[in-house]
Amino acid sequence: MSIDHGAALARMRERAPLVQNITNFVAMTTMANVLLAAGASPAMVHAREEVEEFGKLIGALTLNIGTLTPVWVESMMLAARTANANGRPWVLDPVGAGATSYRTGVARDLAALKPTIIRGNASEIMALAGEAASAKGVDAGDAVSAAEGAARRLAPATQAVIAVTGPVDLVIAPDGRRAEIANGHPLMPRITALGCALTGIVAAFAATTDDPFEATVSALAYYGIAGERAALTTRHPGTFYVAFLDALHALDPETVDAAATVTLS
Amino acid sequence: MSIDHGAALARMRERAPLVQNITNFVAMTTMANVLLAAGASPAMVHAREEVEEFGKLIGALTLNIGTLTPVWVESMMLAARTANANGRPWVLDPVGAGATSYRTGVARDLAALKPTIIRGNASEIMALAGEAASAKGVDAGDAVSAAEGAARRLAPATQAVIAVTGPVDLVIAPDGRRAEIANGHPLMPRITALGCALTGIVAAFAATTDDPFEATVSALAYYGIAGERAALTTRHPGTFYVAFLDALHALDPETVDAAATVTLS
Amino acid sequence: MSIDHGAALARMRERAPLVQNITNFVAMTTMANVLLAAGASPAMVHAREEVEEFGKLIGALTLNIGTLTPVWVESMMLAARTANANGRPWVLDPVGAGATSYRTGVARDLAALKPTIIRGNASEIMALAGEAASAKGVDAGDAVSAAEGAARRLAPATQAVIAVTGPVDLVIAPDGRRAEIANGHPLMPRITALGCALTGIVAAFAATTDDPFEATVSALAYYGIAGERAALTTRHPGTFYVAFLDALHALDPETVDAAATVTLS
Repeated sequence: MSIDHGAALARMRERAPLVQNITNFVAMTTMANVLLAAGASPAMVHAREEVEEFGKLIGALTLNIGTLTPVWVESMMLAARTANANGRPWVLDPVGAGATSYRTGVARDLAALKPTIIRGNASEIMALAGEAASAKGVDAGDAVSAAEGAARRLAPATQAVIAVTGPVDLVIAPDGRRAEIANGHPLMPRITALGCALTGIVAAFAATTDDPFEATVSALAYYGIAGERAALTTRHPGTFYVAFLDALHALDPETVDAAATVTLS
Repeated sequence: MSIDHGAALARMRERAPLVQNITNFVAMTTMANVLLAAGASPAMVHAREEVEEFGKLIGALTLNIGTLTPVWVESMMLAARTANANGRPWVLDPVGAGATSYRTGVARDLAALKPTIIRGNASEIMALAGEAASAKGVDAGDAVSAAEGAARRLAPATQAVIAVTGPVDLVIAPDGRRAEIANGHPLMPRITALGCALTGIVAAFAATTDDPFEATVSALAYYGIAGERAALTTRHPGTFYVAFLDALHALDPETVDAAATVTLS
Repeated sequence: MSIDHGAALARMRERAPLVQNITNFVAMTTMANVLLAAGASPAMVHAREEVEEFGKLIGALTLNIGTLTPVWVESMMLAARTANANGRPWVLDPVGAGATSYRTGVARDLAALKPTIIRGNASEIMALAGEAASAKGVDAGDAVSAAEGAARRLAPATQAVIAVTGPVDLVIAPDGRRAEIANGHPLMPRITALGCALTGIVAAFAATTDDPFEATVSALAYYGIAGERAALTTRHPGTFYVAFLDALHALDPETVDAAATVTLS
């Protein structure tokens, strides 16, 4: 088994999928810029008055609970059901699950709506699976390896691909396939919303690759490689973010395929 | 007929108008930074409790429906009426008009409130004029030239200056004056909210130039020239945005007047 | 009397306090990136459903009324009371106080809830103290020195440390201690939300230094020195912001202590 990550990137750029994001206020601008730099077409649309009609236009959807309130959650529920009805993939980003009971409850309610993919840090995935986690606000307090059991239970239970991101990312498919992606750089968590924006990239790949597991793995590899490229030029976060956007735009498919450090099993 | 774009820029910077923006969540930070770099004074104020009182302080107003909800639309309506009552120019940015019936309806309701200027991409202007457009989410799917008929009908119908922005911008005044502005760079749509932020620059010029048609043309030329300057240093979006903000700040009036590629008729 | 600003920075970085911010839409991303670059852990959490539970996890809180609405103000009130009940320091940023009666009223209501520190520009502090100020929207229209009387009255009346920021910052403690901090650079107000983000840095220091007056002074010095470092490389706002984030990350405690230009009395 192997995946052609370069072909996945080329296909995503060629189709430039429209990705609808109902996401948090901190992440919106960064997420839009990341999706544009990569070659996708982002749209932030959350009004209940238009979520169903807009859902017919999109290639994929992301839902992110970073700055949730009940009114936004209602729109998220409606958008998830719309994506399901239209056969569009959607990705859940359970930001801060485990930090408060409200947040954990909403994350579980959304996970019950059959997301195609769930992407979170180790603490969030553990909280979603009902395990005790040690998050620090919205930052992970647990190692990726500590969340493997949770991911292995969540994948078949939700029928979603589970992506646990961290120094080495872990991806588990409902059918038991497993991948580790070792690309990335320690400066990435020092820039806000790079995790949230990654969820958008996963959705863009899922909109243009039939297999959500393969889409997720290729998206994580591409993203991590862009981080490695950025780190060649700087070790501080201001310049890193700028170089990261440039790398997302500049990376060609051949380079991505060659630089991907993916272990499939 | 000719316009002194450099004088318009110098006047805007000297007066540093306070521009109130009720805009979308994705654009807010970028719009504020663009206005500050250019020399204006931005403020994002949208609470119904203070829109009328704040309206007495401003030089101009912008309304942008990118992430609209009914409560925000109410504030926009109130702000538009306040600007009219106080004789302040205001600019409508009908983001995504045509994408959903809710969005198109709100855009038309706002256009009926007599904006001084309407700035949108070709698909948005066509949707506002009741024509079938082919937008992709919030991105234009139509060429600027395809929207000329719509702009020519909208301008007298709304008594607003209509600006259709794209590779070559088109501006139509209610009295039939017409301008094309060829400045700009293809990387600009790859950075989120640069269109939204341009609406703010148009408002800043309209606050300090009596003729809204001339204000719009000078603002578009200045903005496009800043994009050209940025593109001299990079071809990737991260560094482009940084260089663009620098160029908005660094450009002097003489350079703007000399580099403007404007055709008036 | 002297303060070891470098030790304060080293302590903040070592403990990496979780700082909850209920802040305005323009500032959220910048504030998160500034806190991350400095070494703190930011979280934007505002839902009434989780403010009380989340309040047990935090090191400090900031409240910023830049884009206030009644629903957000309710959450701010609840978060302030929660911080008081849990003995956590909190910082009020009365953005635009004086611009409208609604805004001034909310700022005073929050100031009455016993913030640990209030940080604003001269016009905001004057408005909070009931003096006539000459703000321009959310930008100061008054010199720092004009606000000294207001700060001297507010500090004992609210029992909060009052920080008036501008070209030379002024800090007054409820017990009468006074500091001036001359670090900083004139480009800083040309980047949106750097004032708002400074409030977050003040909170991060207050979470890890027992004396709120000393925490405030060290935070202002550190922030201003980062601005001076950034200005060594550029005189335009796009590159300045990038270099400023880098400087917040790169500055070591010894350099901060040596470069601080603080006058205590």
